[in-house]
Amino acid sequence: MTDPRIAVINERLKEVNDIIAVSSGKGGVGKSLVASTLALTLAEENYKVGLFDLDFTSPSTHVILNVKNVYPTEKNGVVPPEIHGLKYMSIVYYSGEHVSPLRGADVSNALIELLAITRWNTLDFLIIDMPPGISDATLDIIRLVKRIKFLIVTTPSQLAFETVRKLVNLLSELNIPIIGVVENMKMKESRFIREQTEKTGLKFWGEIPFDYTLEEAIGDVNRLSKTKFMERIKEIAEANINKI
Amino acid sequence: MTDPRIAVINERLKEVNDIIAVSSGKGGVGKSLVASTLALTLAEENYKVGLFDLDFTSPSTHVILNVKNVYPTEKNGVVPPEIHGLKYMSIVYYSGEHVSPLRGADVSNALIELLAITRWNTLDFLIIDMPPGISDATLDIIRLVKRIKFLIVTTPSQLAFETVRKLVNLLSELNIPIIGVVENMKMKESRFIREQTEKTGLKFWGEIPFDYTLEEAIGDVNRLSKTKFMERIKEIAEANINKI
Repeated sequence: MTDPRIAVINERLKEVNDIIAVSSGKGGVGKSLVASTLALTLAEENYKVGLFDLDFTSPSTHVILNVKNVYPTEKNGVVPPEIHGLKYMSIVYYSGEHVSPLRGADVSNALIELLAITRWNTLDFLIIDMPPGISDATLDIIRLVKRIKFLIVTTPSQLAFETVRKLVNLLSELNIPIIGVVENMKMKESRFIREQTEKTGLKFWGEIPFDYTLEEAIGDVNRLSKTKFMERIKEIAEANINKI
Repeated sequence: MTDPRIAVINERLKEVNDIIAVSSGKGGVGKSLVASTLALTLAEENYKVGLFDLDFTSPSTHVILNVKNVYPTEKNGVVPPEIHGLKYMSIVYYSGEHVSPLRGADVSNALIELLAITRWNTLDFLIIDMPPGISDATLDIIRLVKRIKFLIVTTPSQLAFETVRKLVNLLSELNIPIIGVVENMKMKESRFIREQTEKTGLKFWGEIPFDYTLEEAIGDVNRLSKTKFMERIKEIAEANINKI
């Protein structure tokens, strides 16, 4: 029997054109920064954009975008607030900021409920900040959200790419489309990630040089939008987003 | 009723003097590199050391230490191989390198079995490379391994420290000792992490400057032991390990 919640969730998402899961093998590669700035960039280009933070392991888009004093409202489900020109929803609205080491089944229930109740209405892009790596939560989201497509963020590090390989293998086995790979925190010339990406038949979207000014721009969207990081995200998005 | 496996596991660990769980809030902060080089350093100083990689989300100590062609042997349990002067055991021996997105209960069973079967015999230090953050696996290990003490690795990043805060709160609630905090990948002068650490009553072990040469030393222990990173780990260990 098919899980009846799948129908509810996909009914909620039916007016969303593209659902992009920003994912990584390991944590700490800048996934949340890529997800946040990609959403901002697309909103600036007048697309209708939603940003959905489902990284229950370390939700951080609300810190990056300085989301304060705005909350979802209830109306036949939950309507996300608008901030910086995009619709915003996060698991922190559900779990709060407290310690809450949600056990596996609770994480799963929280994610399912959030997916089932959030009313995105019409969107060009829904950007999901995914939990890192392959966890039960990742598998749940894949199972529940039809039409999901993955954008993978990695660093130049071998260790990061090892885990990307596992994620790519899993997604391929499950026939989930991968729209591209972004190489973040690039410090020196190397074609390793590009070559490995292309060897596995995936599209290399581009690299983002390590940006020393980024840390200080966290929580200040105005400053964030002037960083080299976001400039590069904009270029990468413009070159690739219409071909997904 | 107490879980009977707890007795088995702690019987296995009774000849181990200190059990140090190297942990982080987020992934990608260099936790596995700290755990590996800390184990190497202590082994070089003639302590009896074990390194136990339980980071099922992205096991990497075998890549860092280039563990190849050595395997555990079976004899009233499983005896870890010796490599670079230390006893080594990893979840990759259990799960292999394949995709294996172990579901929650399977992860838990794998960890419990590994803890219950591995014969460390007499050790001064058992260094555990933990899964990142607060997951079911982290909670399982805490529940199962009595006398566990945490060493926390963070980067200077606000986002990394936010998740460290949650981990620290959890450990404090559970009365698990935290022996110190190491700040890795330091790029510029800042006292933020040191001050935050000391404010919460924890011991700041020291900082490790970002080391550009580290990536190329991965998998080459000889080269690794000549990096600034490992030099700094040695200083930090010498200053702090006898006071835990």
